[in-house]
Amino acid sequence: MSAWVLPDHIADVLPCEARHIEDLRRDLLDTARCYGYELVMPPLVEHLESLLTGTGEALDLQTFKLVDQLSGRSLGLRADTTPQAARIDAHLLNRQGVTRLCYCGPVLHTRPDKPHATREPLQFGAEIFGHAGLEADLETLLLALDCLGRAGVHGLSVDMAHARIVQLLLAGLPLSAPKLAQLHAALAAKDGPELASLTRELPADVRQALLSLVQLYGDSAVLAEAARALKAFPAVQQSLSELQWLAGQLKGAALSFDLADLQGYAYYSGVRFSIYAQSASDALARGGRYDEVGAVFGRKRPAAGFSLDIKALVGAVAQRALRAAVRAAWTPNDAWRAAVAQLRLQGETVVCVLPGHESEVDEFHCDRELVSVGNQWLVQAL
Amino acid sequence: MSAWVLPDHIADVLPCEARHIEDLRRDLLDTARCYGYELVMPPLVEHLESLLTGTGEALDLQTFKLVDQLSGRSLGLRADTTPQAARIDAHLLNRQGVTRLCYCGPVLHTRPDKPHATREPLQFGAEIFGHAGLEADLETLLLALDCLGRAGVHGLSVDMAHARIVQLLLAGLPLSAPKLAQLHAALAAKDGPELASLTRELPADVRQALLSLVQLYGDSAVLAEAARALKAFPAVQQSLSELQWLAGQLKGAALSFDLADLQGYAYYSGVRFSIYAQSASDALARGGRYDEVGAVFGRKRPAAGFSLDIKALVGAVAQRALRAAVRAAWTPNDAWRAAVAQLRLQGETVVCVLPGHESEVDEFHCDRELVSVGNQWLVQAL
Repeated sequence: MSAWVLPDHIADVLPCEARHIEDLRRDLLDTARCYGYELVMPPLVEHLESLLTGTGEALDLQTFKLVDQLSGRSLGLRADTTPQAARIDAHLLNRQGVTRLCYCGPVLHTRPDKPHATREPLQFGAEIFGHAGLEADLETLLLALDCLGRAGVHGLSVDMAHARIVQLLLAGLPLSAPKLAQLHAALAAKDGPELASLTRELPADVRQALLSLVQLYGDSAVLAEAARALKAFPAVQQSLSELQWLAGQLKGAALSFDLADLQGYAYYSGVRFSIYAQSASDALARGGRYDEVGAVFGRKRPAAGFSLDIKALVGAVAQRALRAAVRAAWTPNDAWRAAVAQLRLQGETVVCVLPGHESEVDEFHCDRELVSVGNQWLVQAL
Repeated sequence: MSAWVLPDHIADVLPCEARHIEDLRRDLLDTARCYGYELVMPPLVEHLESLLTGTGEALDLQTFKLVDQLSGRSLGLRADTTPQAARIDAHLLNRQGVTRLCYCGPVLHTRPDKPHATREPLQFGAEIFGHAGLEADLETLLLALDCLGRAGVHGLSVDMAHARIVQLLLAGLPLSAPKLAQLHAALAAKDGPELASLTRELPADVRQALLSLVQLYGDSAVLAEAARALKAFPAVQQSLSELQWLAGQLKGAALSFDLADLQGYAYYSGVRFSIYAQSASDALARGGRYDEVGAVFGRKRPAAGFSLDIKALVGAVAQRALRAAVRAAWTPNDAWRAAVAQLRLQGETVVCVLPGHESEVDEFHCDRELVSVGNQWLVQAL
């Protein structure tokens, strides 16, 4: 095989798209900074047990493993940055109050998440630690919407779910791990017949509640319906009123609800959201509450946040205009060099045409040229 | 061992430093753009043979290996981005003329380069392909100096070398690979006695030339000295006049020369440079000409460039001032939310004080507060 063939689902990002991704990266980080989120840069590799403790089997399967020559221990290449942010909050910053963190960097997956997904997403995310109230959930959701708006995505809609509902319905029942996984899969697939078969031995009220979840998706009327269908479970009402409160705060946003949705990482513990756009078939950002993640690092703190893949995002927004540039034929002359330096100081892109390459076309949009007029160097339109 | 202990020579970058690194990243990429360098983002992992072909044993030892579950083939985590840029120039862009590329992203090393080095540098680099003339060498050197200047490094000096001199002196001699490695090591260490012992069986003029190289370091007077000492080797004179021409173009810069210097990657084929600053003990940027790198991808093109580690750079420049921010106590009120959004649109950082966290201090420098006056929200000094 040729030396230049890349592995499947791994790709170079070439100039025009790379510049757009860099612009989006800056827009997203600047938006998070405007909300008071501090930037952190966790490492690409960590000891496997730090990366994976408490995050579930799905992340384990997604994580590349390698061996540390210095210690002989197993390392993992991060497949998700959220557990790293929780580790930083728990141990390095160790603050009592609210901590807001954001990050942006590559993650690697052993297998693509979806048929056409990259195995190297560029993950951007923001997390708020230390506040158990719904104001934190709301803040991360508004920040996610603001980030996507700033990136130029139009026609956003938010799909909401709650990780506690299924947990509360099944609480205390003696279910094996494989059985639980089957139940979750049937719920996620909204597979009523499968669910009916799997729940045959569960208490009748739990069975009825689980079966009703499969129908509980749609606009905010779903919440009232759910309150009726699940009235035998008082603890679940709390989850429903959390969703209701957030819906009230998000007047004007296009909202939908899906109470059987169990997609995504296993670490969610409360409200969850996915943000969709007309221009993309899959969710562009996912987030929610995950109060348990920091526990394995010895410090269980309330936490909520979201993340997105900038490589997926760039496919959902319109290309930006190329920046104009100035051509300047290379001249062994101090005055020429000073003129070029001055233009660059002003922020202009000046592309030097090196000797012998006068007639070449490059990818920059050169609309002007540096020319010698009398004893001065001047910029003229091309 | 605790789940939160990181591997040796791997570290989190925490808020203040992370923000500074992000600022430097932008400054460097913007400077390269002003010179007409197009941004590319090669992947973190590739097939091992693409990453390592033609780059020498040192890079092989530095490269983490892992297995691709999709294909069963060996992958490498990139330890250097330069060969990837050469691959992109050779195959993806495939232009006839001059191509300028820049990149910025993490690389990973199996072992630290130096006792206190990180194993995860953040590599920034710029490469120019397709021009064999010294104007390309000069452009990358000026760009490297401009990048370091823009980053705020003062007291820069350039140390120059030439990879061809030793290659030409040893050309055609029947030396085994281990013997060659020993010779290179003795030259790099300026170990005269060792070199004298290793060269005992070489032709007398070659031996004398190699021994003289060890003394040939210092200011530009070295070049005239070298022309005399190496006059038996006409091909070497060409390398010396290349250094002389560049020295003439760099009037005003602090220059030194070291003709025995063989440090760094094996792929250099011409002029090489290292840029030092008073505030750092090791070189901050390294670069030069490496016309051979693209050959393994089926397209040998002239190439010159440089790279640097932003994590090392940030330690050599003064910290920047913290950005001021506005505090705003969370209020369930549309007018309050609009006032906060308006401030953020203007680029302000607004940190929401969530209910119950009123007396907390955070890391942002909040010098103002959003307060309700009459029926308006106004910003007041704290």
